[in-house]
Order: sequence, then C-alpha cells, then structure tokens
Amino acid sequence: MANSFGKLFTITSFGESHGKCIGVIIDGCPAGLSLNQNDIQSEVNKRRPGAVGTTERVEKDCVEILSGVFNNITTGAPICLLLRNENVDSSVYEKTVSRHRPGHADYTAFMKYGGFNDFRGGGRFSGRITAGFVMAGAIAKKILSKIDIEVLAHTVEIGGIKTEPKSLDEIIKNVNKNNLRCADLKAAQKMETLINEIKQRGDSVGGIITGLATNMPVGLGEPVFDTLEGDLAKALFAIPAVKGVEFGSGFLSARRKGSENNDPFIVRDNKVFTETNNSGGILGGISNGMPLELRVVIKPTASISKEQNAVDIEEMKVVDMSVAGRHDTCIVPRAVVVVEAMMAVTLCDFSIREGLLPRVMQ
Amino acid sequence: MANSFGKLFTITSFGESHGKCIGVIIDGCPAGLSLNQNDIQSEVNKRRPGAVGTTERVEKDCVEILSGVFNNITTGAPICLLLRNENVDSSVYEKTVSRHRPGHADYTAFMKYGGFNDFRGGGRFSGRITAGFVMAGAIAKKILSKIDIEVLAHTVEIGGIKTEPKSLDEIIKNVNKNNLRCADLKAAQKMETLINEIKQRGDSVGGIITGLATNMPVGLGEPVFDTLEGDLAKALFAIPAVKGVEFGSGFLSARRKGSENNDPFIVRDNKVFTETNNSGGILGGISNGMPLELRVVIKPTASISKEQNAVDIEEMKVVDMSVAGRHDTCIVPRAVVVVEAMMAVTLCDFSIREGLLPRVMQ
Amino acid sequence: MANSFGKLFTITSFGESHGKCIGVIIDGCPAGLSLNQNDIQSEVNKRRPGAVGTTERVEKDCVEILSGVFNNITTGAPICLLLRNENVDSSVYEKTVSRHRPGHADYTAFMKYGGFNDFRGGGRFSGRITAGFVMAGAIAKKILSKIDIEVLAHTVEIGGIKTEPKSLDEIIKNVNKNNLRCADLKAAQKMETLINEIKQRGDSVGGIITGLATNMPVGLGEPVFDTLEGDLAKALFAIPAVKGVEFGSGFLSARRKGSENNDPFIVRDNKVFTETNNSGGILGGISNGMPLELRVVIKPTASISKEQNAVDIEEMKVVDMSVAGRHDTCIVPRAVVVVEAMMAVTLCDFSIREGLLPRVMQ
Amino acid sequence: MANSFGKLFTITSFGESHGKCIGVIIDGCPAGLSLNQNDIQSEVNKRRPGAVGTTERVEKDCVEILSGVFNNITTGAPICLLLRNENVDSSVYEKTVSRHRPGHADYTAFMKYGGFNDFRGGGRFSGRITAGFVMAGAIAKKILSKIDIEVLAHTVEIGGIKTEPKSLDEIIKNVNKNNLRCADLKAAQKMETLINEIKQRGDSVGGIITGLATNMPVGLGEPVFDTLEGDLAKALFAIPAVKGVEFGSGFLSARRKGSENNDPFIVRDNKVFTETNNSGGILGGISNGMPLELRVVIKPTASISKEQNAVDIEEMKVVDMSVAGRHDTCIVPRAVVVVEAMMAVTLCDFSIREGLLPRVMQ
Repeated sequence: MANSFGKLFTITSFGESHGKCIGVIIDGCPAGLSLNQNDIQSEVNKRRPGAVGTTERVEKDCVEILSGVFNNITTGAPICLLLRNENVDSSVYEKTVSRHRPGHADYTAFMKYGGFNDFRGGGRFSGRITAGFVMAGAIAKKILSKIDIEVLAHTVEIGGIKTEPKSLDEIIKNVNKNNLRCADLKAAQKMETLINEIKQRGDSVGGIITGLATNMPVGLGEPVFDTLEGDLAKALFAIPAVKGVEFGSGFLSARRKGSENNDPFIVRDNKVFTETNNSGGILGGISNGMPLELRVVIKPTASISKEQNAVDIEEMKVVDMSVAGRHDTCIVPRAVVVVEAMMAVTLCDFSIREGLLPRVMQ
Repeated sequence: MANSFGKLFTITSFGESHGKCIGVIIDGCPAGLSLNQNDIQSEVNKRRPGAVGTTERVEKDCVEILSGVFNNITTGAPICLLLRNENVDSSVYEKTVSRHRPGHADYTAFMKYGGFNDFRGGGRFSGRITAGFVMAGAIAKKILSKIDIEVLAHTVEIGGIKTEPKSLDEIIKNVNKNNLRCADLKAAQKMETLINEIKQRGDSVGGIITGLATNMPVGLGEPVFDTLEGDLAKALFAIPAVKGVEFGSGFLSARRKGSENNDPFIVRDNKVFTETNNSGGILGGISNGMPLELRVVIKPTASISKEQNAVDIEEMKVVDMSVAGRHDTCIVPRAVVVVEAMMAVTLCDFSIREGLLPRVMQ
Repeated sequence: MANSFGKLFTITSFGESHGKCIGVIIDGCPAGLSLNQNDIQSEVNKRRPGAVGTTERVEKDCVEILSGVFNNITTGAPICLLLRNENVDSSVYEKTVSRHRPGHADYTAFMKYGGFNDFRGGGRFSGRITAGFVMAGAIAKKILSKIDIEVLAHTVEIGGIKTEPKSLDEIIKNVNKNNLRCADLKAAQKMETLINEIKQRGDSVGGIITGLATNMPVGLGEPVFDTLEGDLAKALFAIPAVKGVEFGSGFLSARRKGSENNDPFIVRDNKVFTETNNSGGILGGISNGMPLELRVVIKPTASISKEQNAVDIEEMKVVDMSVAGRHDTCIVPRAVVVVEAMMAVTLCDFSIREGLLPRVMQ
Repeated sequence: MANSFGKLFTITSFGESHGKCIGVIIDGCPAGLSLNQNDIQSEVNKRRPGAVGTTERVEKDCVEILSGVFNNITTGAPICLLLRNENVDSSVYEKTVSRHRPGHADYTAFMKYGGFNDFRGGGRFSGRITAGFVMAGAIAKKILSKIDIEVLAHTVEIGGIKTEPKSLDEIIKNVNKNNLRCADLKAAQKMETLINEIKQRGDSVGGIITGLATNMPVGLGEPVFDTLEGDLAKALFAIPAVKGVEFGSGFLSARRKGSENNDPFIVRDNKVFTETNNSGGILGGISNGMPLELRVVIKPTASISKEQNAVDIEEMKVVDMSVAGRHDTCIVPRAVVVVEAMMAVTLCDFSIREGLLPRVMQ
C-alpha cells in the first residue's frame, strides 16, 4: 500500500470502515496557522449523509486533533486527526470474506493481500476513508485562503440529467441550497426524483462533478512529470468510484480544431487573461491564472440490492448476490466535498513548492 | 521542475527541443536483461513523423546508450539514453521570447521561469521531449514481456471521426497498416482526408487514443494514493496535449446504473473473469486480471498557421500571430507510441513493486 | 518538517512530549503477519526509565493499535500505533517559550517555527518521540525475524568507561542483566557509580552504543545514494543526541594501512566470509553477509541542573539557567532499544526493496 | 540501485569508471543563474590527480553541458553534465569478473547484480563516479554563494598524522598551498613523506577530512527524519571509502559531561551565538547559525599491490592477489572537493526547502 500523497504538504491516510477509526496525518503545514476543531468539523459535516438516497449509517464523526496544534495554532509539527467509528454493523459482511461483490475491490484486495485484508464494510477500500481526505482538505483550504485561492466543486450531472451552464456567482449562491450540491435548482429536482426511482428499484446511479479553483496564481505545477493535471488526477483517482478526469474542454477537444480550442489571449488592466478557458486554466502543466476547471466522473455505486453475479473465491463459482449493508444510491453529492478536499491538498502542495506560502504564517 | 517518475523503476527526463539533445535515465532496471541499441531504436522510429499532416522536421534520432549496459546486457546501473538534435531551425522562434502563442506553454513557462526558459521550439515543453519517454518505454516493454504483459495503443477518434469497435485480434493485425495507428481501416481513410483538409486551412485537429494492456496479473496498484488509475493518469498527463484520461466505461458510467456498469463475475477453467470490462480491468485501484483499458484525449495541436490572438508580454498587448515553424496538423498518430511508453513505464514500476520481477533477470 | 522515513516500509512519526500522544504509522507492512499488542508493548517497555539516573517521569505507555490489524493479523493497510501521554507536568516549561536552554533545540525550533512550536518538554524535539520509533521497530524486528535477521544493540562506553570486547554469545547473554544494557558486567558497575556521581553534581554524561545485525543476507543496500551506511546513518541521526555514526573500524581506519584494514576473504563450507570485519559487514554500500556492525555516539544529556548560559530571545540577553524538569543523567541505556528500532526499520525497508520478503506472509 | 538524491534540488548520477562517460543530472536548479562551462570545470579540476601517491590515470575531464542552460543562464530545466572517459585501460580487470578484491565492492556487486555488473575499474563502484558529484557540487556552491553560504573542506589527518587546530582564516589561506588540501603546512610535509613511504611498500593509507560551512542561516534541516545531520551523512556515505561521519565534538562527546559539551549562548550586536561549537552548528537537527562542522573518515584505499587474500567466486576458493590497475595510495586529498560537493548539494536542497532561495534568480 501507499498511503501518503504530496511532496512538501504531505497527507498520510489510515483507518478502515469498520475498524476503530478513520484518520489522517498532515505533514508540512506551515506553523502559525490558527486552527480549531470546528474548522475541520464543518468540512467533515458536509460529507455526512443527508441527501436523498444516501446511506442510513450516520456517524457522529467528531474530529479529534491529536497532535501538531498548540493553543489553537499550528506548530509546524505533523497534525494527526481522528474520527472514531461508532455506528458499525459488520454482521452483514461476514459472507464477504470469500464472496466478492461485482464492481467492488473485494476480489482484488483479497488476491493482493492474501485474504488478510479487513473486508468489513470494504475495509480500506470503503468510501468512508475519504472522511480523512476531507479533514486534510479542511486544513489545505484554510491555508489556500491566505493566498486567496478558493476551491469549489458542484454536481453537474446525475444519471444523464445535466445542469445548465451557470455563472460562478450563481454556482456559489445555489450550490448549498440542496443536498445534491447542484447549482441548477431545476435540474436538482429532476435528479432527486430520478434517485428516488432508482432507489425503489434497488439500483444505483453515477454522475459528474465539476471542480473549480478561483484566484489562481500563475505558475503552479512542476512539469514534466508533476504537472498540475497529473498530480490533480492522481489525487482525484484516490477517491473510490472516480473513473475519469478531464480538464477544460477535455474529451470534447478531440472533436475541435486548434482555432476553436486555443484560448485567445486578452490584456485587461495590464494583466493577461484568455477569452475562453478551454485549457481549464492550465498550459504546459502550469496554471495560467485563469480559473482551474476540471471534471470527474463518479461511477454508479457498486453496492445494489438487485441480484448480481458475485464470485465465491473458495468454492470458485459464481453466486447470486444482493448486496446487503447500508449504501448510497448515488454517492455523487457526498463526493463533492471530497473532490474539493483533494484539489485543495494538491494546490496547497504546489503553492508551497512554488514558494507562495511562507514557512511561518503571520 | 520535477523530471523523475516512478518509485522503483524511475525515469528521469532531460533535454530541450532545440538544445543539444533529448535524453532519459532509467534507474531501477533489473540486471541481466539483454538490450541492444535496436531494441530502443525500433520504438523511437515509431514516433518519427511520416503520417499525413506530420511535421517536416525529420530527425535521424539515432539512439546512443551512454551507461548501464555492458556486453549488451543491463548491469543494474542507471541507463542513460540520448538522441542528438540535429535538424534544428530556431530562426522562426526569435519572436517567441516575448510573444506567447495561444494554447502553448510560452506564457506560463515565461512567467514561472522568469523569462529564462529556453523558448526555442517550445524548449522543455515541446512534444519532442516525449522521444525520451519512448526510449524508456522501449526498455519497460521489454521487461514487461518477460511476464507476458503487452501494451498496445491505437487511434480511435480524430476530429469527430470514430472507429467501429474492433476485436483485439483485429487491432493487433491492423494497427500498423497505416500511419495513423488506426485499426479501423475505413475510418482511417476518412481521418486522412479530414487531416488533409484541415491542413489546407492552416488549422489542426485532436483525437482520442485507446491504451490497452493484456495478460495483466491480478494485484498491480498500491492504494489508496498510488492507485493504478492514479499513477497511469499522472504518467499520461506528462504527454503535452493530453487533457483527459478515463478508464473502462469512464465518463459514460455517469449515465449508467449500477446494474449496468458492474461487471458480473464469471469463473472459467477455475479462473475468475468478468463478463464485461466496464472497470477497465481495475477495481479498487488494483488490476483484476482483465485487460487494462483506458482512453486519453489529445487536444488539437496548438500551433496553427491561421492568425490568432497572441500576447506580447513586453508590450503588454494582444498581437495577431500566425505560428511559423514546422508542426503537426494532427499529433494523435505520433502520440500512440508515447501513450504505450508511459503505460509501460507505469506498469513496469508497479510490477517491480508487486515483486513480480526479479532483481536479476535470467 | 519531514516525518516519514523509508521507501517501501515507511514510518511516519507524530506527537509531542506534552501533547495528547506519541504515535507512528507503519505503511508497507506485509499482510499476514501475526501481530498483537504485546509484540509492541514488550519493546516499548525496554525504553521505559529504570536504570540509575533515568527520569522520574514514568508513563504507563500502553500501546493502542488503531488500524491495519484485523484478528491479530496485519492486513496490508497502514498500521497506526499510539501511546497516550498521561504523566505530564508542563509547569516548569513556562519560561522556556523565550528562554532557550543550551544544547537543546529550543532556539532553533523557535526560530524555524516562528515561536509557534510546542515547547513544553521539548515538544517535537523531545527524546520521548523515540517511543514511536520503538513501536515501529517492534514490527520491523518481527518481520526481519522471518528471514532470520536479528538486530541487537548494547552500551559500550559511558563517560569514558569502555567495555572489554565480548563475544556475540556473551553479549546476548549479558546485555539484559543490567539496566545499562551493557554486556561487560564489570564495566557496567563502574558506569553505574560514575552516573551516580555525575547525578549528584547536577551534571550529565554521554556514551557510545554498538549496533549489530546478525544473519545478514548479501545484497542489502541500493548504491550510489541509498547505501546501507547512508540510510542507516540517516535513520540513526533522527534520534536526538546522536552526533556521530561509524561502521566497522570507522574512524580508526584513518590510522590504518590498506593491508591492515582490508578484510581478507575466506571460504568455508562453500560460503564466502571475511577473516576480520573492519568493513562492518558492508562493501560498496551493500551488505556482504558478515554481521553488520556500527557505533553511534550519544552526547551528554543537554538538560542539567547546573547553571548555564541560556538565552532569553525576547530580551535578547544571556540569562543563567538551571534546567528544571525531570531528566536523564545518562540517556545512553534508554537509547539502546531506539538504536535497534531504527536499524530494524532500515533493514526491513532494504529487505523488502531487495525482494527478500513476500508481499503476503504465510 | 537508487541514483537520485535531494528532494527539491535533486541530483541523479550515472556512468561507470570504464564506460563511455560519467554524468549527472541536476533537477531543481533555479532559473536565472549565470553558469558557464568553466564554473564546473574549475571544480572538476580540483578532483584530478596530482598530489603524491595519486593515480596515474589522468583524464582530460572536459565538462559537457547537455541541457538546462541557454545563453549561459540556467533555464529551470534539468541540467545534464557529462565527462567522457578516454584514458581507459580495462585490460587488468579481466580477471576481476570472478576474482573479488578484498575491501572492494566486487563481491557484493557480483552477488547483487547476478554477475552482470560492469566490473571494469570497479564500474559503478569506482571513486570515479564522484566526478559527477563534483559537477553537481559546482552548481550547488554557486547557488549557495547567492545567500553567502560557503563550503570548505580540508585534510586534517592522514595515516595518524594530525594537523594542529587552525583558524578559519589560516585554513582558507593555506588549504590550496599543497596538493594534500591540508592547511597545516608542517603536517602536510610529514603526510607527504608518509604517503611516499607507504607507496614504496605497495600499501595505502586513510585519513580524515573536516567539512565546514560558514555564514549558515538559522533553520536549515527538516526534523525528525530529514535532519541536517541525517541528510548530510547520507550524502557523504555515497562517497566510496567513507566509513564514519561525526558533527561538532562527535565521538569525543561520549567522554564529556553536559556542562562541558553544551555550548553556552552569547548575545552580541543583538544576535545570538554560542561560545563554543560542540554542536557543529546543529541543534535538534536544525542549523543554529554557527559554522557547520563535520568530520568524515576515509578508509585506506582498498587497492594495494601487496598480496592479499581475494576470493575466486567461480572456483570458490581463496586466491592470492596483488591488485593491478592505477590507484591512489591515499585518496584523502582528492576526496576533499567531493566532500565539499556533497555538503553543498545537501545544503542547497535544504535552503530551497526552507524558502531561502527564489525560484528565479535575479
């Protein structure tokens, strides 16, 4: 396993879905940042279930700060954050040892770790580990705010229902008006109806999240290998269920001509901008000062109560399985804050590497 | 800059488009691998121009092995490979110092490196640096062949023209029948016509490449952060012009239900397979033994002779610019072998991490 | 800060002397290793005070396993281990904010972290953080035992009193017969007398520890930069108070001739040995199969009750200071198990890198 | 193998003693640094033989800059530097394939790389690879000079002959007055006589080098694992023949009391100093602003013409061997500039990590 990410701002993830806790260590946080429990708790709360079709497992998720903070100020030492698992019901997972659910990591984890992996609730492969990402993201966001970078994600597609394009102002205004984190309120209603229907049928559905970062400086990204796209993508693929990442016009650019896809430069108030933002704010793997814009696809939740062909690895035969346990019909809304977190962590690392953040905050 | 990639099988890239050379160091290659100049040269040749609409700059690209190989066998020491730049015409780039082309890294590189970057031919941001990736890929492919993994990429879309689905056998049979590396020969003809048209108009066009790896073992990938998807994506985003990466059903899965997208397990000859491959061969960030399948989008070449709005950073104003220099109307075909290279490098690193390759080959 | 060490077997340290806890994460531990709380507790207990002249702060130091272990077997997931700080008396440290003790990290930590560092008990710079190293070392030792490597350290010098050379058998037999971890029982008595005297005078004293590893395989170490000496030294310098590391004949070899210092080869039972072991078991940065032998010097404890010139950084003047708090007159005996731990962690990492340990233990 | 060192200022070493070249890549050099061939050549020249008892193999060692420099200014891109091997005589090494010299890496390299290692002249384990370190060091020194840090090493002991303590001014004035890089001119004469004697007898001799860095800022070093001592030691152990590293009073501190070894603080001109420098300028793994002071021991050259017990690994028996080839009776003087180089590389990396150097030099 490899559970650390980031070069100068490094997060290390630990914990399992049905173990004692979910945790994260943040190493490389500048000293002198004011930080209290609520800064982190408020972000963790955004990830908690609540929307239509989200899991019935509700954890208190009370954040414990174990190290690295003294008198509510960061010390420069590694910050260890913890969430205790309390509402754990592992009974339904007993069969999972040898019966591997389709679309899940059960089979690959079993094979890679010789059957010793903690399979309860998906163990280390559960979406629950992203609660740790969110705690790290809370700190990263707070650091980025010191240089005015803001990270914002929102739901733009669920089960084929797409939002209309919205202005940044509208997105900011509306994104928290519904539990789907969808800034197009009409689309959100349709999505809610769809999710309810899908839930009735014992099925699940996927979607797309757009991630934005505004007030971006020019110069983040370290080509040729640590490009802004490359490191963001790597960070985002750590979120279970993400199966694709694109920047700016992304896959659409395959059908475009250079004259359509290149963003013409403009100069305003002695500053350089581009007229369009097909590049998603990144040229040559380096931020160009325009808003960073990316899209990630979240596959439909693998756990469904509909019967499916699972595999029993001990008996080496296919078995019908209806996945029990408490699951989300659509995980997209809860993944929004996780996308923000992983973007923030990555941008924070690059900002430190670029020398935009001091070693000691004032 | 960050010019190294890979944890145990590490490549370090160097060189510029119009400098003395393009090079790469491969560190972590097992000792005992037979390796001669032609093993690498044959891969480099696949990247050379030739297809319709490719650049008129033709380099001999004769591979020099500077270290790490003794009596045509790898020694375990770092392997340094070099291509001399010979056919260099920098005259047209003189203006580029302060005039930045849209869609290029000119502006971001200028800003990040204080104007000291080697701007000639894009310098370090030129597609030419991928010749170094291909040299490293040649070695990675040879190593992977010892455990039967084969990497194969092919063109599946150019300028909106898509290929019909083809079987693996057909792909292998047809992919080298045309310079577009397109296994659908009919589609390839249409693509060629389109590229010619676009070229006449002084424009460019993008496309999509599918990357495959067959005979995949179960267990490659190191979650939660070094997932197979994450590291492959990071490697692929090092290729200039790549703006999106997806695995299996990718962005399409946003519109699917779990019951459609989950791959039902099957057992055949006491081995586990899945009926479909919507996961692209990866579950929980770990290979599941099915073929690895991914898609990358290549944006249309930024350099076009059509006039565009560039920015003159010294005079701080927008200027009309028709990009001179020798460029590719469509870079997709030449990128196919680069996609293979970066996939091979990543899979080689994971195979060594998983203990599938010995320290010393026999 | 940089709180992770090791490439494939990676430990991440966190916690402070007077904070909530001391902890460590071990990432890269093979799955399938049987591991219970006592395996770790027994090592932690070896580090606890007890010998003459050791601190009066006695912590229960009860090891908590937070993750990575399921049914007393490692799962392949990161293992988080915790010791709660309970017997904390920070009152005497109040002045330390601005008054920096000589020989301590007070001043450098204050300057580097802008005065935000947790100064209580030395905070992140306290010897107490090595309790986390010992927890990681317990796991590393258990893993190494599967390939028969044994790590053993012992006190060989305190305050100028040196031990007589002892055979490996004698060392093993005697090292735990006294709290000084000294295999020369006569020397140990003199050391004890000396430490008592020094303590009376309110002073402190340093010493030397020899570290051994037996049943070493040939081939550990990854030159040219990750040499066995280099990585071991780096690991050992993480222990506060270590100011020098030497291998084999070490500094003595400066006075020797090649004909004296080279270890002549011998062949016995068709295996290669060397007659002497001036190389300390390492040639070219790689283990040669002979016992690994190194020495580390531990400087005298900086905290003494004798008056010294400290600096008051706010008033910018020198002040007399007698260091209060509960301290060790001689930390050498307690550092013995820490030296073992850091050696074990390093050797474990190299063994995994060399492919000597499976991904899954059986 | 692991041939890269440094986190933000990273050097990658390649090449073999009797291969085509010795080379190094420097990644992370700030853009905008003026740099010409002579800046590097002048350092490389210091490493060339010349002193009494140095090898008869004299290479022109003409530095080639292959990348990363444009118009004599660094671009921010990786800098590849090369020295061609020209004066190569591999004839005497033919027997070395299976006959392994005592004190050399022949045996361990053979075992680790399955006999495929390039054994000619020691291949990758030759002292000649340090020519690459020196090239990197030349750049690191030039960067450090921008923040006034100066690195200086000198010979303080050879074969038991020790220098008298000298002031920094005397060291600077005298160190280059002889080929032994010894600032005590009387001691140097005795050393020279000794080396000549030893050479007559076909033997070799070791020594000790002191490394200094002046004008040190407070704050370099990233505890708990990337301490200033730890990373410097790791860097220095990459130099073949180094078997020990100590800082400040080092091993001597084992015999000292805390009241003797602690450096009392003094305040002068509103700045903090210490009266003595037993810490070697490092407290808690972080520089304290006093001169950095370390000592490395260089073992006697393993290659001697006196007969020794080598091992023939094919016949599995001990054989008498007088090492042919062209060797140094005492490598210490030539290692002085290498010690400086590795110190400079390490300090440069830490300076960038600490934010003391801009991304772009002006």
